[in-house]
Amino acid sequence: MSGFHASVLTLYPEMFPGALGLSLAGKALQDGKWSLDAVQIRDFANDRHRSVDDTPAGGGAGMVMRADVLARAIDHVAPPHDNRPRLLMSPRGKPLTQARVRELAVGPGATILCGRFEGVDQRIIEARELEEVSIGDYILSGGEPAALVLLDAVVRLLPGVMGNDISGDEESFEGGLLEHPHYTRPQEFEGRAIPDVLVSGNHARIAEWRRQKALELTRARRPDLASGLNGKD
Amino acid sequence: MSGFHASVLTLYPEMFPGALGLSLAGKALQDGKWSLDAVQIRDFANDRHRSVDDTPAGGGAGMVMRADVLARAIDHVAPPHDNRPRLLMSPRGKPLTQARVRELAVGPGATILCGRFEGVDQRIIEARELEEVSIGDYILSGGEPAALVLLDAVVRLLPGVMGNDISGDEESFEGGLLEHPHYTRPQEFEGRAIPDVLVSGNHARIAEWRRQKALELTRARRPDLASGLNGKD
Repeated sequence: MSGFHASVLTLYPEMFPGALGLSLAGKALQDGKWSLDAVQIRDFANDRHRSVDDTPAGGGAGMVMRADVLARAIDHVAPPHDNRPRLLMSPRGKPLTQARVRELAVGPGATILCGRFEGVDQRIIEARELEEVSIGDYILSGGEPAALVLLDAVVRLLPGVMGNDISGDEESFEGGLLEHPHYTRPQEFEGRAIPDVLVSGNHARIAEWRRQKALELTRARRPDLASGLNGKD
Repeated sequence: MSGFHASVLTLYPEMFPGALGLSLAGKALQDGKWSLDAVQIRDFANDRHRSVDDTPAGGGAGMVMRADVLARAIDHVAPPHDNRPRLLMSPRGKPLTQARVRELAVGPGATILCGRFEGVDQRIIEARELEEVSIGDYILSGGEPAALVLLDAVVRLLPGVMGNDISGDEESFEGGLLEHPHYTRPQEFEGRAIPDVLVSGNHARIAEWRRQKALELTRARRPDLASGLNGKD
C-alpha cells in the first residue's frame, strides 16, 4: 500500500471517517491520497459478551481496557513488520504539536488506538511501545474525537491535498507566532474600516505591520510561545 | 428552550453531529439533554455565487471570511438577547482548558463559529466580541473538528450524560496532575504482572502509590503542569 495509511482501533468505528469524509480530506480520501480503516476492538474479545474492559486493579471508579484484547487488535492491524507509529490518544500524552503533525505527514501512516472509559492497561502501552498523544488539556468522552483532529491536521499536509486556498507558510505556529489579524472587503463594516496600512500598497510596510501585530498578539495571549522571541522585534 | 443548546456556524453543516450523534453524547442528544443546530454560513451571503470569502486586504495567500456575511449569520442564530458565549474556533485563540469546559457546561450553551481558509475578518471578532478558542498548537483544515472536540468535552459533563463508567474526580487535569497508570485483569500479560501494591488490598498504600505515580508522570511529561506542585509530595 502506498501513501499515508491510518488504522484506527475503536469501539465506535462508525465515527470514521466522519468529518474526514468531507471537504478536502474527504476528496483526498476518495482520490486515494490517503486511506483509513476503522477497526472494532470488540472483534478481538474472546468471550461471548465481547468484553473489552474490566474493573481497575486496586479499586476505584470506571473500567480499564484490557491489555490482552488490545494486544490482539493492535497485532492484527499492525504486525511487527509494520513501521507506522503506534499512537494512543490520551490526556496523559505528550501534547500534539504542528512539528509532530509534520513528521507524521511525511511518514507511512499511523495506527491509532482510541482509549475509552478510565483508560487502558499500562502494560499494553509498554509492551507495544505506544506513543501517548494528547490534543489538549481537557477530557473527552474517548479518543475518537482526538483521532479525528490528529488525522485532519496530518491529512491537509499530504501531497496534493491542500488547495491553493490555504497557505502553509503564514499560519499560526509555523513561525513560532500566532497569526496576524486578517481583513477583506467590504472596506467599511459597521463603521470599522480596514487599517490604512493594508490598503497603502506599500508591501514592506504591510509586512512589518503584520509581523508587529503577530508579535503583539503572541505576547498578549501566549507568553509561553513568546518567551523565545526576545530580540526578534 | 431548556438545557445546553449549541449553534454551530459552518460551511460544512453535514459534519454535525458527526461523532456527537453516537455513544453517550448521541444518546443525550436523542434524549433532549442538549441540542444542536448546524447552520450553513453560505445561506447568509448576498450574491448569486453565495460568496463568503474574499482576498486578504494587503495581499497574501488564501482567502478571508467576510465580516458582513458572518455578522448576518451570527445575528440570525444569536440575536442580541441571546446570552450564550460566542466562540470562534481558531489556532490564535486562548487554549481550551478543562476549567473553561466546566464553565461552558453549566451555561446555556454556545454559538460556535468555525473558521476556514486563512481566517475571518478581524472586525467581526471585535464587533461581535467573539471569544477565540484554540484546542491545541496545531493547524486544522477548519474549525469544525475543533468544535466537535469542544462540544464532546462539554456534553459529557452535562447532567445525566456521563455514565457511572466514567469518574469525574480521578481524571487527568482535575487535580492538576496527569492520571496514574491503570491495570486490570488478566493478572499476568506477556510476562508482565499487575504491580503488587494494587492487589494488596491496602487502600491507603494504593492511594499513596497512585498519587506518587501521577506526580512522577506529570513531572516527567508535563513540567509546565508540575511547576506549581512543589511541596505537594
